[in-house]
Amino acid sequence: MQRRGIGIIGLGTVGGSVLEQLRTRKEALERRGAPYEVVGVAVRDRTRARPGVEPALFTTPEALATHPGVDVLVELAGGVEQPWEWVRAALEAGKSVVTANKALVAERAVELAGVLAKCSGTLHIEAAVAGGIPIIQAVDRGLVANDVLRIEGILNGTCNYLLTSMERDGLDMEVALKTAQELGFAEADPTLDVGGGDAAHKLAILASLVLGRPIPSTGIFTQGIRNLTAFDVTWAREHGYRIKLLAIAQVEGAEVELRVHPTLVRTTRLISQVMDEFNAVEVEGDLTGPQLYYGRGAGAEPTASAVLSDIVHALRGEGPVRRNDTRGRDLRLRPMGEVVSRHYLHLEVIDRPGVVEGVARALASQDISIASLYQPETDHGAQVPLVFTTHPAADAQLSRALETIRQAPYLATPPVHIRLED
Amino acid sequence: MQRRGIGIIGLGTVGGSVLEQLRTRKEALERRGAPYEVVGVAVRDRTRARPGVEPALFTTPEALATHPGVDVLVELAGGVEQPWEWVRAALEAGKSVVTANKALVAERAVELAGVLAKCSGTLHIEAAVAGGIPIIQAVDRGLVANDVLRIEGILNGTCNYLLTSMERDGLDMEVALKTAQELGFAEADPTLDVGGGDAAHKLAILASLVLGRPIPSTGIFTQGIRNLTAFDVTWAREHGYRIKLLAIAQVEGAEVELRVHPTLVRTTRLISQVMDEFNAVEVEGDLTGPQLYYGRGAGAEPTASAVLSDIVHALRGEGPVRRNDTRGRDLRLRPMGEVVSRHYLHLEVIDRPGVVEGVARALASQDISIASLYQPETDHGAQVPLVFTTHPAADAQLSRALETIRQAPYLATPPVHIRLED
Repeated sequence: MQRRGIGIIGLGTVGGSVLEQLRTRKEALERRGAPYEVVGVAVRDRTRARPGVEPALFTTPEALATHPGVDVLVELAGGVEQPWEWVRAALEAGKSVVTANKALVAERAVELAGVLAKCSGTLHIEAAVAGGIPIIQAVDRGLVANDVLRIEGILNGTCNYLLTSMERDGLDMEVALKTAQELGFAEADPTLDVGGGDAAHKLAILASLVLGRPIPSTGIFTQGIRNLTAFDVTWAREHGYRIKLLAIAQVEGAEVELRVHPTLVRTTRLISQVMDEFNAVEVEGDLTGPQLYYGRGAGAEPTASAVLSDIVHALRGEGPVRRNDTRGRDLRLRPMGEVVSRHYLHLEVIDRPGVVEGVARALASQDISIASLYQPETDHGAQVPLVFTTHPAADAQLSRALETIRQAPYLATPPVHIRLED
Repeated sequence: MQRRGIGIIGLGTVGGSVLEQLRTRKEALERRGAPYEVVGVAVRDRTRARPGVEPALFTTPEALATHPGVDVLVELAGGVEQPWEWVRAALEAGKSVVTANKALVAERAVELAGVLAKCSGTLHIEAAVAGGIPIIQAVDRGLVANDVLRIEGILNGTCNYLLTSMERDGLDMEVALKTAQELGFAEADPTLDVGGGDAAHKLAILASLVLGRPIPSTGIFTQGIRNLTAFDVTWAREHGYRIKLLAIAQVEGAEVELRVHPTLVRTTRLISQVMDEFNAVEVEGDLTGPQLYYGRGAGAEPTASAVLSDIVHALRGEGPVRRNDTRGRDLRLRPMGEVVSRHYLHLEVIDRPGVVEGVARALASQDISIASLYQPETDHGAQVPLVFTTHPAADAQLSRALETIRQAPYLATPPVHIRLED
């Protein structure tokens, strides 16, 4: 069998681990895939010493992307604009492209679908979602005969780590975040994680896969976890819930909901038990019924495991199955305002006459029915938490009620609004 | 593209569902796989009416297995001797064989490996383990670059259903079993399920896959759940454990442990939260770290989902990756007597002087250290439960201590022994 050429762009922690395994596990990987050779490596900083990498291997990403000796291009550089050019060029040259770049795959979803439709190249994205969990293959191959009805995922390890440490140590978000940053568990700029954007990227990729049409992450309602307090996390625990940042895709009739937001989840559900930096994806196929996939969603070795799995598939000449159905095209994206769920409202109010009445009136005026109500005893005139949970109501109803509540003079801090999935 | 021929042996609930989906989802399955046609169907009772199946399709299993128009043979008949002949003939004729028959794959593991090594046929066994969970593909493809260090599975839905109903309704095993049989959730002859044999079959298949050598289920230590009592299930819950029938494959250094037995599992572990008839498999890859796969392990549609996934792979000409390593050959199967774990002993004793001393002496004489001890207050001379948990000890040590304890005159019923994994 002819030896196939692999080119790697990016030698960070993931790229370094991939290169190491390609060397140390060569015999096993070749037996499972096909004989290969690493023919080139591109890094940003060529002056930095890379132990064990012959200098002759170093080249530019542009050169690798069109290098005639490269059959499999592994893109691990990060960013969107430049990688997009490299990936497009490689696909158009008929190569297999393996990438862990979720931003690229999510933000260039439509363009990638266009390129893939016109060329013989194949795109392998196992490492772009949920790290070491082979969720792309599970959905693409394992559930190939299913219509996927629902996906609910904990797709951002940083957020789940923060929510876990808030619960474990009774911390407010800002404190938990600062500690996590000091320990290296959160980025210096955590916006993409705690803002929900990273989870939205991954949801866009999963949704594109199961709906068979490219879904840009820009269309996904995204709310982060930044404003959650220790009170919310504790209230949840005491009432049989946990707060998780869930990425949800749900097909209902001729519509699909796509949304990322903190969610109160019953502790009887398996996904509520996913702690620390772990990821999990609940998938419901119409034949399989509910499933859950759990594991490490980041880290050099788990991500390298996914990249190597894609490389082996590429070496075997086995591209993704990929749905390309009318199903996705016929589904209407339900606007967030029409999404119905239960709601949790946490208000910090000044305890004085008329406060509860005011909130209750704001809810009633939008036809929202109160399911439960909680206010601890406190000194008159002091600040006190007030929690309302509602029966199912459309997001637009709740938004309008919140609008009214926000203008009330008795509010000490901005309200915390969390959707509740029973 | 040339239309490929599919032959189906067995039209029970699974076979019926597979045939139905092959018809109703034809367009999608062909787009994802390749154009196909069902060219023949073999059933045991040809006189029974099969609505919607043209009589001309009916033939014998033998004829289908060597039928030149059959590219993919789907074996869903059950049993071992006869299916083995059909499957072997089809493989030797170069066909793709899809089977849900775990007994066949486990009991003919060595023979199947021999046949596969010498022919161009491929064997697809996704449906043989854990029904709709694509665990075979996850391990075979998703974790292709990993050395799998450990597998722990709830692989028998009937047992998990029984253990759940024992806990939920406070029932002894025999009562739970009778109720389950009346509801159709357990077989009239439940031996293969509650005796652990079915789980051992599935463990043999998973272990063969990750170790890259055929492992017959006969070599697996297997203990069922038949003698568990409501007391054990309740004691577990009150002490932070649940009892699960676990199928365990564990690599330690140059040895591998393979065993199926009821196990006390901490309720902090995700796998302890798997209830009712659901299946789950924990897998630890050396790159991925711990993972869990959860879903329905049986039923017509989940199993059909797995069969159809295999059929699509076969239509695409994509066989399993399959490890075939020296790793498995170099590992020694650790005899059960050498397996070290903690232990739970539940004795029903007549409350009189010297009882605790007698048990403690039996344990001490085997160098087994007691970790905890539990005896409720009772009337002198009455029957009372006595529970010992031990620190880690080899199975052989505990067996010898049990031997002594079993001969003691104060024992009212046979002791219940459950291994405990922290």
